[in-house]
Amino acid sequence: MSGTIDARLADLGIALPAAAAPAANYVPYAISGSIVFVAGQIPFKAGGSIEHKGRLGADYSVDQGYESAKLCGLNIIAQVKAALGDLDRVTRIVKLGGFVQCTPEFTDHPKVINGASDLMVEVFGKEIGGHARFAVGAPALPLGVATEVDAIVEFK
Amino acid sequence: MSGTIDARLADLGIALPAAAAPAANYVPYAISGSIVFVAGQIPFKAGGSIEHKGRLGADYSVDQGYESAKLCGLNIIAQVKAALGDLDRVTRIVKLGGFVQCTPEFTDHPKVINGASDLMVEVFGKEIGGHARFAVGAPALPLGVATEVDAIVEFK
Amino acid sequence: MSGTIDARLADLGIALPAAAAPAANYVPYAISGSIVFVAGQIPFKAGGSIEHKGRLGADYSVDQGYESAKLCGLNIIAQVKAALGDLDRVTRIVKLGGFVQCTPEFTDHPKVINGASDLMVEVFGKEIGGHARFAVGAPALPLGVATEVDAIVEFK
Repeated sequence: MSGTIDARLADLGIALPAAAAPAANYVPYAISGSIVFVAGQIPFKAGGSIEHKGRLGADYSVDQGYESAKLCGLNIIAQVKAALGDLDRVTRIVKLGGFVQCTPEFTDHPKVINGASDLMVEVFGKEIGGHARFAVGAPALPLGVATEVDAIVEFK
Repeated sequence: MSGTIDARLADLGIALPAAAAPAANYVPYAISGSIVFVAGQIPFKAGGSIEHKGRLGADYSVDQGYESAKLCGLNIIAQVKAALGDLDRVTRIVKLGGFVQCTPEFTDHPKVINGASDLMVEVFGKEIGGHARFAVGAPALPLGVATEVDAIVEFK
Repeated sequence: MSGTIDARLADLGIALPAAAAPAANYVPYAISGSIVFVAGQIPFKAGGSIEHKGRLGADYSVDQGYESAKLCGLNIIAQVKAALGDLDRVTRIVKLGGFVQCTPEFTDHPKVINGASDLMVEVFGKEIGGHARFAVGAPALPLGVATEVDAIVEFK
């Protein structure tokens, strides 16, 4: 990896959304020691509109869910940039927690949350971007979104 | 903030419940380094009865859910006090994880979990009490409670 | 405790499954400082087949759910062994996060996740194995499994 993460984002044609203000009385990230804990991110698009309201297994396809999770991932990166100033300070994407709004019959949660996971590996590379995670179902999520993803990120 | 957190609690007219014994074979908190990991707390009232059994979007209003989450928050603070002895040792409420028992149509999870979030800011002030969090739905929670909230708390 | 954890496992007649490859684009564990974050484990059996597909409150009994959670716990221990080489390096099972696939009427999540919790205490003893945790419901889990459990583990 020759350049900085910002250059990588540019190479990938990725524009980060503005770090979203929290939907309620909490903060979008909290730092303890060398860890940034990023609050659960929903699929806010650059400009502030909420994309991807829907339920996997019903009105939403796995591909749409994947895009929703990717957008959550972009918002996570935006929050980390707001927290650290410089994304090159990230030493490890430690963990993602992925929630998927779904029907009781749905079983492809991993394929959906891959939208966020693939993004992390693409942007930060496999060594820094490779993370532990969970991917589970939820009957409903805030504002009706298809996915919510939070993160634990190590920095220097 | 002139006084201690105990004084703040008294000023707010808040009496902490007794730190609840876990409902099963685990411990109510575990410490690693400068972090207390608090187990998921349910709405136990002082005296030990369980309040707030219900489902958001069906038999439970957002206001009732808010009170349920607040009670979870009080139980978190009680566990932190049991863990640290002195609540003035808390340097940061790092993260809350909020689960809301709800119907598939419910979308106001943030307003419900605000019951715990508002409490943390009220008791510890914005700088120490402001936290990252997630707020998601669950089809069912232990004992039928409306909310379960866990916490990551930094101390000195 | 006179022997090593491996000896304890042998005494208990427990054979660890092979550390399962992740179901998607992430890693089964990530280390930050003295903490191993273990990705959500599902009930893979030694040999690689997935056991325990079912829903608590419908086609699955609490006893079956308990066995499912125990199998998740065995997979967590297998991942920790893969991460650290030697299970005697574990200084604390800090936290388990337990998700139970269930109907909206189900309320015995703690009894189900005890399958993982009891295992940790049995294998590592009460002082090291005693952990904080949450136990919540999910409408659906990856591949239709009854339980998914992740872990935060401290080591030296």
